[in-house]
Formats: sequence, C-alpha cells, structure tokens
Amino acid sequence: MLNIKLAFAQTNPVVGDFANNAKVICELMSQAHSQGVELLVFGELALCGYPMGDYSYRADLVKECDAQLSQIVQHSRNLRGLTAVIGHIALAEESKPDSQVSAAIAHNSASVISEGSVLGRYDKMRLPNYDVFDDWRNFVPGNSELFFELNGLKIAVAICEDIWGAKPRGNTLRTAGVDLVVVPNGSPFSTAKNEQRLEAARTFADGMYLAYANLCGGQDELVFDGQSFLVSPGGDLLFRGGFDTGLSLAEAGSVSDLSADELLWNALVTGLRDYMHKTGQSKAILGLSGGIDSALCAALAVEAVGAANVLGVGLPSRFSSDHSLSDAADLARTLGIDYRVVPIDPAHKALETMISLPGVAGENVQARIRAVVLMGISNAEGHLLLTTGNKSELAVGYSTIYGDSAGGFAPIKDLFKTDVWRMARYCNQRAGVELIPEASISKAPSAELRPGQLDQDSLPDYEMLDKILRLLIEEGQTISQIIQLGYDQAVVHDIDRMVQRAEWKRSQGAIGTKVSKVAFGRGRRVPLTTRFEKR
Amino acid sequence: MLNIKLAFAQTNPVVGDFANNAKVICELMSQAHSQGVELLVFGELALCGYPMGDYSYRADLVKECDAQLSQIVQHSRNLRGLTAVIGHIALAEESKPDSQVSAAIAHNSASVISEGSVLGRYDKMRLPNYDVFDDWRNFVPGNSELFFELNGLKIAVAICEDIWGAKPRGNTLRTAGVDLVVVPNGSPFSTAKNEQRLEAARTFADGMYLAYANLCGGQDELVFDGQSFLVSPGGDLLFRGGFDTGLSLAEAGSVSDLSADELLWNALVTGLRDYMHKTGQSKAILGLSGGIDSALCAALAVEAVGAANVLGVGLPSRFSSDHSLSDAADLARTLGIDYRVVPIDPAHKALETMISLPGVAGENVQARIRAVVLMGISNAEGHLLLTTGNKSELAVGYSTIYGDSAGGFAPIKDLFKTDVWRMARYCNQRAGVELIPEASISKAPSAELRPGQLDQDSLPDYEMLDKILRLLIEEGQTISQIIQLGYDQAVVHDIDRMVQRAEWKRSQGAIGTKVSKVAFGRGRRVPLTTRFEKR
Repeated sequence: MLNIKLAFAQTNPVVGDFANNAKVICELMSQAHSQGVELLVFGELALCGYPMGDYSYRADLVKECDAQLSQIVQHSRNLRGLTAVIGHIALAEESKPDSQVSAAIAHNSASVISEGSVLGRYDKMRLPNYDVFDDWRNFVPGNSELFFELNGLKIAVAICEDIWGAKPRGNTLRTAGVDLVVVPNGSPFSTAKNEQRLEAARTFADGMYLAYANLCGGQDELVFDGQSFLVSPGGDLLFRGGFDTGLSLAEAGSVSDLSADELLWNALVTGLRDYMHKTGQSKAILGLSGGIDSALCAALAVEAVGAANVLGVGLPSRFSSDHSLSDAADLARTLGIDYRVVPIDPAHKALETMISLPGVAGENVQARIRAVVLMGISNAEGHLLLTTGNKSELAVGYSTIYGDSAGGFAPIKDLFKTDVWRMARYCNQRAGVELIPEASISKAPSAELRPGQLDQDSLPDYEMLDKILRLLIEEGQTISQIIQLGYDQAVVHDIDRMVQRAEWKRSQGAIGTKVSKVAFGRGRRVPLTTRFEKR
Repeated sequence: MLNIKLAFAQTNPVVGDFANNAKVICELMSQAHSQGVELLVFGELALCGYPMGDYSYRADLVKECDAQLSQIVQHSRNLRGLTAVIGHIALAEESKPDSQVSAAIAHNSASVISEGSVLGRYDKMRLPNYDVFDDWRNFVPGNSELFFELNGLKIAVAICEDIWGAKPRGNTLRTAGVDLVVVPNGSPFSTAKNEQRLEAARTFADGMYLAYANLCGGQDELVFDGQSFLVSPGGDLLFRGGFDTGLSLAEAGSVSDLSADELLWNALVTGLRDYMHKTGQSKAILGLSGGIDSALCAALAVEAVGAANVLGVGLPSRFSSDHSLSDAADLARTLGIDYRVVPIDPAHKALETMISLPGVAGENVQARIRAVVLMGISNAEGHLLLTTGNKSELAVGYSTIYGDSAGGFAPIKDLFKTDVWRMARYCNQRAGVELIPEASISKAPSAELRPGQLDQDSLPDYEMLDKILRLLIEEGQTISQIIQLGYDQAVVHDIDRMVQRAEWKRSQGAIGTKVSKVAFGRGRRVPLTTRFEKR
C-alpha cells in the first residue's frame, strides 16, 4: 500500500460561489488534518465549480478566485503535516498561444498547498472539446509538469482529461520516476463510466499509483458522482469512495461497488436535488397523469426534496380514463405528497369557442392548458415545475411544446422509455413497497389526448424504438449500419426523420440530468436547419 | 489591378443538402465560365453549409460530400480556363493529433478545381473556438500551405479564421512570394463587421492581393451577409459585392457601400426568410399587440415571405387599451396582411375559476393564453409562430415563458429596445410610407397585463438599460468598470442580477438572428446554476 495517508475530498461546489466553496474546502482540510491525513485531493475546479462556461473569461471572477485561494493557503498554516491538492482557475501569465483561437484568459489549474505555502501549480494540458466539454474554448492549456515530494515519494499532478488516452504523458512521468499521480476530476456520471475511468487510470498510470478525485453533485445538466479511487502500480483497485460528499480515507480494501441501477438512481436524484438547492428552489410541482413518467419523476422528487415539498396535480380532460385519475391519486397517497385535481375542461371549452381546433391542434391544446395551470400554480405558490418527458419521446418529438414539455427541469429527459420502466421497478424494489402503482408500470402508455389513443399507434414498439434511438444518437451509427443490423429500413428512416424534425422543439427544452453517453443538451450540437437524408 | 479575371460566388447552402448545394455551385461555375472568369471563389464549406455542428462527425455525411465534390470536378471538365476554389469537408487522413482532444474526423477544407482536376486541397489551420464557433470541436486542423499558379501569379489559400490576428502566417506567405491570397469565409453578419474584416484582410495580406469570399444567407441564428471583397497589396478596397447571392465580377471601383441600417435590416429579413425557407415553412403568424416589437416583426415578416403569407392576430384582454387594438388593426392594414381578433377573456375567466391567480401569476396567465391561441392556429393552419421579444426584455427576463416567449423563431431577439425604435423608423423611411403606425413607435411601452402598467414601472429607462446591458453582455465589462463610467451602483447590480436570474428562461428561448457581437444563443455559454455576485 501507498506509504502516504491519503484521503479524497468530494465536494459539491456552486459555480461562482467562491466564498462558500472555499469554506467547505477549509472545513474538509481541518477534518482531514485532525484524522492525520497527509495528502488530501479535491476535485477539478473545486474552488470555482465546474463547468463554468464563459464565466471563465471574466477577469473579476478570476480575481475573486485568487482571493479565496489565498484564504485557503492562510487556513493551511496551522494544519501541520497536511498537503492538499485543490482545483481552481488561474490567470494565464503567458499570452494566449496564437493557435488556440479562443477568448480564454485563464488556466484550469490545481495548486499543491501545505502549511501556509503553495508548493506549486499545475495547469491542465489536455483540454477536452467534445460532448459537454468546452475546456478548449474556456481555458488556456498548460505546458509543464509539476512534481512534489512527500514521504520520499515523487508525486505528479494531472487533471481529468490529461489521463484519458494520453499514453505518451504517462511514459514521461514514469521515466521521471514518479511514484504517484494525483488527478483532480470533474467527471460527470454516465452509465458504464466507472469501468471507463478505471481503464483510463490503469492505462495512464501503469507502474505508478494513481489517485483519482472526483467532484460530487449536480451542476445544471451534469452530475458528478464522486467515487474517487486509488489504483496500485499493478492496476489493482485499492480503494473506491461512495457517491456522496465529504472526506474519505483511501483505505485499502474499501471499495464501494454500487449497482448500475443504484448509481443511476442516485444520479437522477442528485441532479434534481442540486438543481433545486443551488438555484434556491425548495418546492416542486408536477402534473400526475397516472402514467409511468410522471410517477417516476414524482418519486425522484420526493427523494430529492422530501414529500412535504412536492405537489402533484391531476389535470383530467374529457378524454382521461378513470384509471388515470385513480392511479395518480394512489401514487400521491403512497408517496405522501400533496395532491390536487384541476379538471381542464372549462378552459378547453372556452378555447373551443375562441378558435377552431381540429386533429392534433385539439390534442395539443389540452397539453398546453395543463401547462398554463401548472405554471399558474407555480407562479402563485413558488414551485419549480418539473417536466416529465423521457428520451424516447423527446427524440421523436412525441410531446407538445409549451405543453407537457413546459418546466424548469426535466428529471428523466435522458432515460429511454424502457429505462423508465426499469427504474420504476427499481424504485419500488428499493423502497420495499409499491410506491409507484404496478398499474402505472404495466399499462400501455397513452397521452390520452383523444379517445382510445395509445403511444404505439404513432410510434414503433418502445423496445425496438429505444434500440434504434440508442444506435442513432448515443452510438453515432449511420442509417445503413443500423439497417445492416436487421432493423426495417422504412422504420429506421422514419425514426431518423422524426429525430431531425424535433430538433427545434428540443432546442427549447428544459435542462435535465445527463446520464448517458450522448444526451440531448449541451453535449449534442446540431443545426436546426438541415436537409441531410442519412443513408 | 489584378491580372486575373476574378469573381466571387456568394451561395446560400443548406447544411447537409449536398445535392442542391452542388447544383448551385455548378450553375455558378458555368455562368462564370460563360463570362470569361478565370478564378472563381466560393465561401467556406459552400458545398456542405456552415456551421454544421456535430454533423461533421458523421462518416456518411463526409462520404456524401466526397461524392458531390467528384460531380463538381466532372462538371468542371468542359469549363476551359476556369479555376474554382470551393469549400467542403474532407476526411482527415492522418490520425487526429493527440492534443486536439475532440471527436473530429474531418478537415474544413477548400479545393482548387480546374478543367476536371483537383489542383490541390487546403485544410483550415486556425479553428475558431469562441462566440458561436465550434470549429476546434468539429474539425481537425490542417498543417500545410497550398500554392497554385494562374496567369503567372502565385496564389495561396486561407480559410476565414486563418487570416484573423495571424500576422506570422501572412509573413510566411509573403516570403514565399505569394501574389494573391484567396479566402473562403463563413463570416456571420454583425454590426461593424465590414470594417473589422477589411482591417483583418489588410493586416494579413499587406503586400499581397486578398480575395475574401463570403457565404450569403441565413443558417439557424447566423446570417452570412456576402459582401465579398478584394483588397490590393497596398490595402485599397478595390471591390466589394452586395448582400445578395449569385455571381459578382470583382471589377475595380465597384464597391458596394450599404448603410449600417440597411445592412441590419437585410440581416434581419434574411435570417427570418432563410429559416422559414430552409425548414420548409411558408407562412408566419404573430400576435399583434399594437406595440412596437410586434409591429417591427410583422414588417420584417412581410418583407421576408410576403404579406399574403403573414397572419396577425389581435388578442385583447380586459386590460388592453382601445389604442392597442386600433394600432394593431392599422398596422395590419398598412402591411396588407391577414388580421384576426381573438379576445382572450373566455379562457381567462375559465382559468380564474380553475386556479387562484394573484399578482404576477395572473399577468402571466394572459400571456400564456395568447400562446395557446397562437399555437392552436399555428398547429391547425400550418404557420410558424414568431415570438417578438427584444434583447432588452430577454436580458432582464421581462417576458412570460410559454407565453410571449413562445414561438419557433425570434426575429428581433438580438435588437435592444432602442434599436427596435430605430429600425421601426428606418422601416417607414425605407418604405416611404408609415408602415408602422407612428403611434406604436412613440407611445410608452406596456405589456398591458394590468391596468395602467408601463414597462418603465419595472425597468430602468430603456436608454440607460440598453447602455448598461450592452456593456455587460456585449463588451464583457465588469460591474465595477460600469459603475466607474458613472452609472448608479444599485441600478447596475440590479440589472446584473436580473440577467443572471433570467438565464433559465433564455435557455428555453427560440432561436433568432444574431446581429451583435454577443447574442443570446450558441455564442454565449453560461451556467444556469451560479451564484457569482459580480463586483
């Protein structure tokens, strides 16, 4: 085992809230010191919050970060024997390299701080520029190694992307005789990410120890899932922390191993909870249709902010079935949340006297009246409106803009319908009771905007739809590749066209927690105006 | 004058519509050939459309582009004496440089094509990664010069960003004896851009001719404004084309010099027209409040798609003044557009029986009923709903989400209120008649959501508000810098807080034409969740 008492500090910074972020950092340093920790590693930009977006351009923000870092250095004076590695931004001293062609002024850095001194600063070299990451846009790359010694061990620093697919750099460090690489990360959750991180760490550090520290919490659409870890020079996973904030001692043999479903559940709860907490919103409202999407969102909201802070509203129309209302009421009862029923027919009738509403226009108007009611209650009473659409619906545009898509946060926007069903069952299994009525899980999905309507009248079977969507959107497969896998040509082309046609709606959609490789949001940037017929 | 018969081809490609983009390119090549043109320069990615976003990752798209480029080369066989420089993407042959850390697979290129052959391909070296530009994310940078000869002149190629602030590269070309640099561009319109382009060209080309070719047309939120130009080795502007598509011979002395207002007007019209045309939408609908914002949007829509394709709807509430309705009706009459009146009180009353709507909740509900009506008509009859908010309102959040912010396109979202007034007067002056009623221009702005309400009850005077917003958003000034200019401290802090608080609303806003240095849209990427108190 590593000849250093190592700990990870998993913090949940708010972007720009330097004073509070610094306060948490200082508290954890004190706590670590009192436990005899020698080396304490924080996540990427722990002092600033990550990602900061174009806030990284602001000179006043960089200055504020400097000031708070000085406070932390002051605080470390009395913490004898503790060395901390803390992520922050730093004004780039050299002029911006001509080749960068960005407006960036600052590095994405980590400082090594001990007993009142800064032992050195490392600036992130590899700036990711794919998916949700805009580091190349927002930061100036660094160009030199930082080494420091502790208990006779030679230690280097790398930041997040630095260790991904960067074999030559690992060689450089090995050649320099490095024993341990400490790596602050802002690594967002996605399914299967743990294995990928471990693989990246093993490949990079082969022959060295590697201490991988992650942030933990939600920031807009991202959720950082903690799970900081330590691997041995031989690639063994010696320690992995949990999906929670605070200090964890990297003790050999303690390897947190949460199931895929539990990680996903935690990510969904954390994303919603932190969006609400960090934006100062304590209460949530959502329409309960009796269907599975709103049921799962309600259950997530209850875990995120407590049953007392969640208001469910049943909004029956003339086309709503009895079981919808009773399933919604059952759900509200088992979850213990406030529940109101506001039939929408008065407004529906009024609108029918005002304008002609044939076909889909008439269906959409019901969804929009519901949004007017929910936003009205939200405005009057101060709730955050949750929009309950799933990824399958969003992908093909099976939603009403300014209707069911209305809301400030979309808790399950990155879950395909088949994942929604799985997570609903997991929710009940986890609770040990039928929180979400089995009827809501097992009945055929329907928007209930006309008599007898079923999703499957307009859409392919969800099992198949989700498989095709996953290949198209998350795996970047071409139409012809997907057809070669045996899917029907006409169906694949149809789905692809629906995805393109819904681009404009998604561009106006609420943010929501990213849990997959490619979510609809900042990580997927495509034109609204396009005519590419994929083949 | 240059010893080559030079022409610019200003095309308006649709992203991904390779076959049609190629058809236009071939037609312009034939036309140029018939006029004896020797060198024809197209804009950046003229074959693909620009910007392509993450579509640049798609192997099937790159392949389709290759195929269409081959067709163009074939077409050039019979065009004796013509050399064309055409922008397109090309699969990067070398593996992606490790330092790039992106998912890009293709170059942003331009090929020199003559008489059935490709004389060479140049790959863009400087990939911009600021504002709306994601080139570093989407493309692999090139690393070598391309020279070719024509009429004894040595010619080099650069693409757009290559010439901005890249003095050393200009030196390299001069030292190599280059006489002329041809530069395909995808340079979006913004106010004062002409002067900046000319300055960049002069600085880069000092001692060489430089032929700057631009695209011309709208693509999502960007408008390319043509105005391709030729500068002499001494920096003289020899030629500048107009803000229109097609072929223009670079004849010395022909310098298009549109006024700032005319350029801005054209940009607004083009942005709206091309969004509609390219997405296959021929008819527009908008609410007419009798105010200046909707009046200007209606006038722009009439110029973009014709009066016969625009439907104005008056949506009076119990708080609407008589002059609002009569101003709206006057406007519809002078513009010659269809006009309907749908009083919203039936739905308003119905909703009052359904939920309690105190204060602002009651104000918002009126705006949202209007959206339900407008979207209902849009869905039933097939119009694109225009949302008429201006930049001042969007900045401070003075709008109702899912209410007046609802719509597929926001024609004036990047115009401050004071610019809206100026453009309204320009519109009338240009038309030579009072298209927009003087009453709409000169009356005090009001949302009319409660009796006697005026914008200035909630907001600072627009003259001051717009100045402060321009400094904050477009000039990147800090709070303290703005206060030092003499603005009231409390007012500046208030405005800054309003801007931050409205971030989530803007994130769900419609796209609209960018005409300023920093627009709300893809070029401004900030967190929704933040607590930075700027100082």
